Amino acid sequence: MELRIGFLGFGNVARAFARIISEREARIADQFDLRLKTNAIATGAHGCIVSAEGFDLKQALAAVERGEALNTLPGAVDAVDTTGLVAMCDADVLFETTPLNPIDGEPATEWIRKALLRRMSVVTANKGPIAFAHKELTTLAREVKCSFRFEATVMDGAPIFNMVESCLPAVRVTGLAGVLNSTTNYILTGMERGRLFEECLTEARELGVAEANADYDIDGWDAAVKIVALANVLMNADATPRSVERRGIRYITSKELKHASDTGALIRLVARAEMLPSGLKLAVGPEAVAISSILGSARGTTNALILETDLMGELAVIETNPGVEQTAYALLSDLIAIHRELQLKKA
Amino acid sequence: MELRIGFLGFGNVARAFARIISEREARIADQFDLRLKTNAIATGAHGCIVSAEGFDLKQALAAVERGEALNTLPGAVDAVDTTGLVAMCDADVLFETTPLNPIDGEPATEWIRKALLRRMSVVTANKGPIAFAHKELTTLAREVKCSFRFEATVMDGAPIFNMVESCLPAVRVTGLAGVLNSTTNYILTGMERGRLFEECLTEARELGVAEANADYDIDGWDAAVKIVALANVLMNADATPRSVERRGIRYITSKELKHASDTGALIRLVARAEMLPSGLKLAVGPEAVAISSILGSARGTTNALILETDLMGELAVIETNPGVEQTAYALLSDLIAIHRELQLKKA
Repeated sequence: MELRIGFLGFGNVARAFARIISEREARIADQFDLRLKTNAIATGAHGCIVSAEGFDLKQALAAVERGEALNTLPGAVDAVDTTGLVAMCDADVLFETTPLNPIDGEPATEWIRKALLRRMSVVTANKGPIAFAHKELTTLAREVKCSFRFEATVMDGAPIFNMVESCLPAVRVTGLAGVLNSTTNYILTGMERGRLFEECLTEARELGVAEANADYDIDGWDAAVKIVALANVLMNADATPRSVERRGIRYITSKELKHASDTGALIRLVARAEMLPSGLKLAVGPEAVAISSILGSARGTTNALILETDLMGELAVIETNPGVEQTAYALLSDLIAIHRELQLKKA
Repeated sequence: MELRIGFLGFGNVARAFARIISEREARIADQFDLRLKTNAIATGAHGCIVSAEGFDLKQALAAVERGEALNTLPGAVDAVDTTGLVAMCDADVLFETTPLNPIDGEPATEWIRKALLRRMSVVTANKGPIAFAHKELTTLAREVKCSFRFEATVMDGAPIFNMVESCLPAVRVTGLAGVLNSTTNYILTGMERGRLFEECLTEARELGVAEANADYDIDGWDAAVKIVALANVLMNADATPRSVERRGIRYITSKELKHASDTGALIRLVARAEMLPSGLKLAVGPEAVAISSILGSARGTTNALILETDLMGELAVIETNPGVEQTAYALLSDLIAIHRELQLKKA
């Protein structure tokens, strides 16, 4: 089977994914009977191009990494901008990896809506659309008989959404608690070793963990958007990031960390979803957790999520020190899930 | 859709599963379009019965719990023994939950083989057949177009086998490390609090965590069989429990635990699978692990498994203080997986 793919956003994550699928072309064809043809790429700074015949993905990677415009690639047709590209491209699956907008999830949500309406399946690594429009987009995808998948949006490629969907049938998720933001965890575990906040933040930036503007991480927005995405999908909530009681780690002091450690505890930025008699409570804030607890075991950029359930009790997933490759893997796992669905439909 | 089910073994796990599906009959019918009819039950001490019309599962549960023979149930036909039952019953899915035999996996393996040859799918909670005959039984199941599933065999209902199969496509598992035996972990964490080995073991028996004869747990056989099952399925190995370097916790002293704790560590019975240049190495033995590590966070009956992979780095799953309900849930999740496959085949 051949699938035509397109990219909305061609930053670190999309390019890591492009490298995985170029390098493993033969293995993917072999193991999954799947060949891929790239016929749309929308970038922020290198142009937006489409091609019916398809591009050489390695050439596209090389061009962007040299800082060149993509419209020099053989067969490239200019699509003006991302909106134009979504309106004219002809792909089976689009990979949406544009930056997070934690205020309203736009313009990514609108691009995904338009893509689905044009009968293209969408895989997104962007948690904005899940936090603001999960129900609408999932319903729309069902109506147009396309797929909409988003494993990458929380904990990269660690299977969370896909695990609950495929492997925990009949289970009701009744609560969530997680360390979901790598930048703040990197800073907190650095400060535990006696280092300064700013020093750790600079290092997180150098490692590519934190963006140049890390305010969304430090003020808890990133974790808030993630707990909303998790609650919307796994607990059937209808929340937005503004529903989250949110405190970040900007004013955490070494003294507080020291005080926690004197009592066998560590400070973590914990995101929680709890079912209270008054309804669903979503919160993000620094908490003291026991050093030998699951959340306490998350050090550096490690993420951990605990699911409280009815039939399966408490279950946790931990992803140790993920990098961009793990996020890219999430896109691959969603792509293969879509491919499997299409194979079953054809059979 | 209606599925006819049968039980090989009707002990704690099978009865907990029977209770789940009786109590949730309407919800399962509703959510999955699945009705269940029980038409075979093989027990060790209460007889082996079949019925074309099906039994009332609640009546069967009540009879066994009152210590009565099952052949008094309306419509029951005597099947003599489990072997006889497998030869004559007519079910779509059999649930095999007979006791572990860590020496050769029999007679369970033979029952599963016979059931598959009679075109019945099998769900097992028994790790013996996976440790000794995974490849043979999986191949046979494929040949006869039936399913053979075994999520319950390691870490109860925590999705391990199903997660790797469904949610980690294209990923290669390159190593494993886990705290997989609840009895020994209960003893070790009890001893950490200054209690005696025998005292903790007695309590584990009272809680139903340990069998009357807990030698298989204490001497590491249970963990050895589990790491073999994991390696055979997830790393395509062809090992048996005799290939495992095995040490138990029988001679662990409070002094050793104290020494570990003085260095910020805890003792855990760790099962490992490692790819070495000389081949796959499987080992079970007590190890000192850091108090703030993933394996260190496993206290009491909690199980934890770390998967080392190529594309997804290190990923861990933790199941907190599981009971028999979690094992029973594994049977339900496998049943629903089989039901989904059958629905797709019919569609």
